[in-house]
Amino acid sequence: MSDAAFTYLLRLGDDRLVLGHRLSEWCGHGPILEEDIALANVALDLIGEATLLLKLAGQLEGNGRNEDALAYLRDAIDYRNALLTELPIGDFAVTIVRQLFFSVFSLLQMEALQRSTNADLAGIAAKAVKEARYHVRHSAQWVVTLGDGTDESHARAQAAVDDLWRYTGELFMADAVDQAVAADGFGVDPSVFAEPWREQIDEIMRRATLTIPPVAYMQRGGRDGRHTEHLGHMLAEMQIVARSNPGATW
Amino acid sequence: MSDAAFTYLLRLGDDRLVLGHRLSEWCGHGPILEEDIALANVALDLIGEATLLLKLAGQLEGNGRNEDALAYLRDAIDYRNALLTELPIGDFAVTIVRQLFFSVFSLLQMEALQRSTNADLAGIAAKAVKEARYHVRHSAQWVVTLGDGTDESHARAQAAVDDLWRYTGELFMADAVDQAVAADGFGVDPSVFAEPWREQIDEIMRRATLTIPPVAYMQRGGRDGRHTEHLGHMLAEMQIVARSNPGATW
Repeated sequence: MSDAAFTYLLRLGDDRLVLGHRLSEWCGHGPILEEDIALANVALDLIGEATLLLKLAGQLEGNGRNEDALAYLRDAIDYRNALLTELPIGDFAVTIVRQLFFSVFSLLQMEALQRSTNADLAGIAAKAVKEARYHVRHSAQWVVTLGDGTDESHARAQAAVDDLWRYTGELFMADAVDQAVAADGFGVDPSVFAEPWREQIDEIMRRATLTIPPVAYMQRGGRDGRHTEHLGHMLAEMQIVARSNPGATW
Repeated sequence: MSDAAFTYLLRLGDDRLVLGHRLSEWCGHGPILEEDIALANVALDLIGEATLLLKLAGQLEGNGRNEDALAYLRDAIDYRNALLTELPIGDFAVTIVRQLFFSVFSLLQMEALQRSTNADLAGIAAKAVKEARYHVRHSAQWVVTLGDGTDESHARAQAAVDDLWRYTGELFMADAVDQAVAADGFGVDPSVFAEPWREQIDEIMRRATLTIPPVAYMQRGGRDGRHTEHLGHMLAEMQIVARSNPGATW
């Protein structure tokens, strides 16, 4: 087991754990019962995928850390999620535009990972593909509804696209870790998803009458542990129960 | 549509909406990822059942209130859930013992309601039976694990049983509403579930090495809108988004 494969699995798992936790913040707070349930279901899918990915990371690492240790006992600096996933939930438009951006990426990524040379990872990806398909459909429908809706909903959706766009580039940035796992077929270089992702997003933005802002500089840092202040606050809340009861087995 | 049937549906729906919201408070805060997901799934089942029950209540009432209006725009005094469901989540033992008490009741109730003379209610019950079976199995396994576990887990589980027992009686108390819906076959008098419920709970308590406390007086009030202070706090949090954006359609 190479360090690169371990880091690669952390990136896959942390994206989904962090975004899943963000979505779960809507749990019981939506203005519509049906949408409350839909968002919570997406959150559960993502946390479930994260559980499998972090479990595999722990097994391959071989130092006795399981998925709970990796989720609850790492500090922000050891998290490897993209910055996009850790931003606060904002209003519903921010939540659902981010979900679209991530879900289209995740579907492309998981489709490719079904051919991983690691059978466990390929199996996790096969399950995640089915879930990601629903996540794309759900978020795309909402983005079109909001964008091509009232003046208020259009303005909020456009503001969300404007705010979030500069965090999308990091999803496709490849470094030595990606190249190493791509070389032996364990993983896939994420830069290959940039073009198909953009094509799908362009089509959905067109239907939603939304425009992509001119952004010269893309934010980055999460893949190397350089996070926004928001992740630290989120982890403090997420980890408080587990850290207050170290090794609790009751 | 009689007032009794409307009130009866509110009781069924509010039990599940309130308990589902309580469970969702664990979302993202459990010390174990797998259990976090399991509790959130139970919460989603209950909120889904509540949505269907309150929707039917609103349709039968005929005053234009849908499930969202009933969930988000009623004050505590208009809620009809049993007190057991609104108590704070406490520690994990309190959460899971309450879940066992309610789930065994709910399974009996929904099995009987499959024979409701109202086809919609019978259909909702048929779906809920499948979910409640899983809820009973999940909570019973945990109660046995905690009760028949370490000294610490046993003590916490016994304390939970001692605290919660006096709230179980209300589930089976029948009044004029219950008698009216039972008379025309729309609903079922809950007092008929008291004996089979007790037999099942006794068996699980025995396996869990837990004892039922001697309680002379059972708490009541929720079915008539007389709630603990806890429900008001919970609703304030649950309703804030919907009430801050009255009629929001963006």
